[in-house]
Amino acid sequence: MASITASYPWTTAPLIAGAPMRLISGPSLAHAISSAGGIGFLAAGTDVSTLSENLSTFESLLSASPIPGAPSDVLPIGVGFIVWGADLNLAAKAFSELPEPPAAVWLFAPSSSEELGSWANGIRSATKGKSKIWVQVSCIADAIDAVRVADPDVFVIQGADAGGHGRYASAGLISLVPELIDAVRSYYAKGSGNASSPPKFIAAGGIADERGVNAILALGADGAALGTRFLAAEEAVIRKGYQDAVLNAVDGGNSTIRTDVYDKLRGTVGWPEGYGGRGVINLSYSDAVKGVSFEENEKLYKAAEGAGDEGWGEGKARMTTYAGTAVGLVKKVATAGDIVKELRGEIVVQRI
Amino acid sequence: MASITASYPWTTAPLIAGAPMRLISGPSLAHAISSAGGIGFLAAGTDVSTLSENLSTFESLLSASPIPGAPSDVLPIGVGFIVWGADLNLAAKAFSELPEPPAAVWLFAPSSSEELGSWANGIRSATKGKSKIWVQVSCIADAIDAVRVADPDVFVIQGADAGGHGRYASAGLISLVPELIDAVRSYYAKGSGNASSPPKFIAAGGIADERGVNAILALGADGAALGTRFLAAEEAVIRKGYQDAVLNAVDGGNSTIRTDVYDKLRGTVGWPEGYGGRGVINLSYSDAVKGVSFEENEKLYKAAEGAGDEGWGEGKARMTTYAGTAVGLVKKVATAGDIVKELRGEIVVQRI
Repeated sequence: MASITASYPWTTAPLIAGAPMRLISGPSLAHAISSAGGIGFLAAGTDVSTLSENLSTFESLLSASPIPGAPSDVLPIGVGFIVWGADLNLAAKAFSELPEPPAAVWLFAPSSSEELGSWANGIRSATKGKSKIWVQVSCIADAIDAVRVADPDVFVIQGADAGGHGRYASAGLISLVPELIDAVRSYYAKGSGNASSPPKFIAAGGIADERGVNAILALGADGAALGTRFLAAEEAVIRKGYQDAVLNAVDGGNSTIRTDVYDKLRGTVGWPEGYGGRGVINLSYSDAVKGVSFEENEKLYKAAEGAGDEGWGEGKARMTTYAGTAVGLVKKVATAGDIVKELRGEIVVQRI
Repeated sequence: MASITASYPWTTAPLIAGAPMRLISGPSLAHAISSAGGIGFLAAGTDVSTLSENLSTFESLLSASPIPGAPSDVLPIGVGFIVWGADLNLAAKAFSELPEPPAAVWLFAPSSSEELGSWANGIRSATKGKSKIWVQVSCIADAIDAVRVADPDVFVIQGADAGGHGRYASAGLISLVPELIDAVRSYYAKGSGNASSPPKFIAAGGIADERGVNAILALGADGAALGTRFLAAEEAVIRKGYQDAVLNAVDGGNSTIRTDVYDKLRGTVGWPEGYGGRGVINLSYSDAVKGVSFEENEKLYKAAEGAGDEGWGEGKARMTTYAGTAVGLVKKVATAGDIVKELRGEIVVQRI
């Protein structure tokens, strides 16, 4: 079976993907990750209106600084969509207007299986099959369902430790990766999937350094996707207050929580049932737990929004700091290129 | 630095430990695990009254079937205590009456740091320092605290995926193992710990096959401890209904939950705040979530208790089935010896 890097010929094994973090993963971050032999993802998220502009910015970066080994028929990056909230027609239109579509499209959080199937078909049709379909799942049931409706080229297996949105009911990668891979392979072995293209598997959630990457390879994954680690990339579109809060947080199992408190305060509505966002525990969360009324908590949150970088930080933080449990392993800002090389073990990190 | 197997000379790398599961990990299971080159643990749990009898049974098994490489000054097994509920004086007395104490004593869930310190000192004193002190933790803060009061020989790093009792606030092994190891090593590097004996690290929670073992080695751990996988050992003291429920459960992130519902129904009181037990979701749990009154739920539970193996099983289950998220990787009953060899990769398992 061909290695996953064969499908993305500018990449180096083990494959490192930059997760499409809404508002944070822009053209510069994607370009930097792909330039280092990983695969960067632009985050379209729920809002496709800025996609064409972001793709065009990426194309300018690529012209100025080409990526060796990139094929001529696709852009050497991917684009991530939050399926329940994004407009498929706009996405398909943006892609069909491009000379080359992105090498991969990452689909997350459909409101139904049918919607996931429509997206997979719609994207394949708009890109003449050139964009590989990546589907993010966090349990076995969703994975088997995705095979049935979307025949993914790649599964992104999201573990419970992941930052930002994910399912409450989930397991860590240590048990989820092997069980999910076995279940999907066995489904294909029974002749139930498209046997000519069994999927590859990328693990995400709790990985922040070379040790995490080697662990998920041992579990059977073909590569790793990371969000939290790239929050501390120089190219991330992120406020200094947010980035500092990531650098300062330790003991992620204690200091982060998956909750809908942040969605509610930010006025984010529409996530399908069962999803919450993992972020660093802050005053908004602890006030909500203490029983402070939503109205009062929202007022305090809005005031923090007006405070700029001062809205984050120990003891006074109310601004949302989405991050995974690996947040304690993120201790310095670096270029995305150096982060990718560290993850592959090409740059050795002094730890203590 | 000497490898961890040097301290337990009958063992083979990578070190496989059988977790001390209350009521389930008895002398036969411990003997079978240690005989295969792992280290079995007897579960004293909260009740030390059966410890002497269990140790004596183990000694008979050992006489009948000696373990090659076992040293003469310790028994080639460990004993696990749930510290908040166990009686240190009784434990110390049981050990001092033995010709040889166990090679390791595993301490879990103290109600305070002081209590953990007393246990570590008390056991070291009763066994003349022959029993190594293993301390189970699931966050960085508890680990640093344990170094301070107990100077553990071994940390058992328990991830959120572990079955049975553990802290609600926890991370998966993928991020917890590297962060905890870095934090403890850096504490020792600052001269804050006993520099002559920096601890070793055993990872537990979500590991069920060779892939999980290799993953935690990649994360930097020295060995793996497993509970759920040994629920399906021939030598486990377990009802067939419970064992079948483990074999049948899949998709552990969906099918298990950490909760206090089972403790309440079973009348288990005394766990320190912040601990819950992960088990397979059953009717007791779903009724509790649905709002069935405790009295009614308890009545239904007691009726199930009287139903023997019929108290478990799809759709009718009310008996508690403590298990971790790796439950979906446990598909067959085997001897504990074969399980240990599979975990070390000496027996190759056909997966699909």
